[in-house]
Amino acid sequence: MRACFVGDSFTAGVGDATTLGWVGRCAAAAWGRGVAVTAYNLGIRRDTSADIRRRAEAEVLARLVGTPGDAQAVVFCLGLNDTTFEDGMPRVPTEQTLDNAAALLDWSAARWPTLLLGPPPALHDAVQDARVAALSPLLEALTERFAVPFLPLHAALSHSSAWRGGAARGDGVHPDAAGYATVAALVEAWEPWLELTGG
Amino acid sequence: MRACFVGDSFTAGVGDATTLGWVGRCAAAAWGRGVAVTAYNLGIRRDTSADIRRRAEAEVLARLVGTPGDAQAVVFCLGLNDTTFEDGMPRVPTEQTLDNAAALLDWSAARWPTLLLGPPPALHDAVQDARVAALSPLLEALTERFAVPFLPLHAALSHSSAWRGGAARGDGVHPDAAGYATVAALVEAWEPWLELTGG
Repeated sequence: MRACFVGDSFTAGVGDATTLGWVGRCAAAAWGRGVAVTAYNLGIRRDTSADIRRRAEAEVLARLVGTPGDAQAVVFCLGLNDTTFEDGMPRVPTEQTLDNAAALLDWSAARWPTLLLGPPPALHDAVQDARVAALSPLLEALTERFAVPFLPLHAALSHSSAWRGGAARGDGVHPDAAGYATVAALVEAWEPWLELTGG
Repeated sequence: MRACFVGDSFTAGVGDATTLGWVGRCAAAAWGRGVAVTAYNLGIRRDTSADIRRRAEAEVLARLVGTPGDAQAVVFCLGLNDTTFEDGMPRVPTEQTLDNAAALLDWSAARWPTLLLGPPPALHDAVQDARVAALSPLLEALTERFAVPFLPLHAALSHSSAWRGGAARGDGVHPDAAGYATVAALVEAWEPWLELTGG
């Protein structure tokens, strides 16, 4: 099976000294179930939904086309960096975030099984964190239009001591290995992911 | 530090149930030395040097531009899939492999510290393996033009029981976790890599 994981630093696993991140842990768990996953990690630090929209098509098509015998999937996780303020403005306004997410889901869900993970909390900035909390249900509502499963992460991670402690010990934003293990456990307990990966 | 690893299935870590591959192991080793590496794994299954040449510029620029404060690097590993015969012809003839590699190294070495790893053995096919063995020194000679460090892998891995055993237990081509650990140990013993990553 081949899967693309498209997102930002949180998908890339920034801050994890094991370098696995949640993507590597979930892929290894699938191997443990006998499903040999090739996980293409397409997380890029600082990427907004607009950055992801610009590159996703080329990067995913380079990885998922031309291998018809294999199961394939795309997992998106986006939105956190959109809510960062620069010069008094969000890097991407909410309406544009939703437009970018709709374009990505529309394109991907027509081709492959597609999942969307909601953004994680922004623990270093309570005002930004409130914006993330407000964005998550808007993304969830959007996924219903495309019949794409959605996994909210904001509330669960906001209350996770592993996540909070990892971020506090690290750069304040990104968790450590234990924090990413918490995310992986949430994904591994999620039926749509398990259906894709032999759970 | 941010580093892009650009190559084929062997860079992607195909066959490794831990999902780390040699890239993840080497990045984790750098973390162990106190260097927080973000490793962007840009390995794609079946990619030839021509495929890599088509996508490398866009994919690397999306990851390494705009972060001037960080140390950055690019590591290439290519050539194995070029030597596969299809319809009685190599997927990429040797002269074109060398032209593709020269274009990639010329572009990358002008911008970032750049390394090239030679192709691993093709243990499932003795005739192809002889072509890989012949290609490796040609790539090595090319790197001298660009002052790019080169790490030959073919001979060392051909004699590695971990590599051979892993490939035999797997799909015949790709090693298992122990095989990738052998590659990681070779990279971790290589001075140009250690200089980049705090060794």
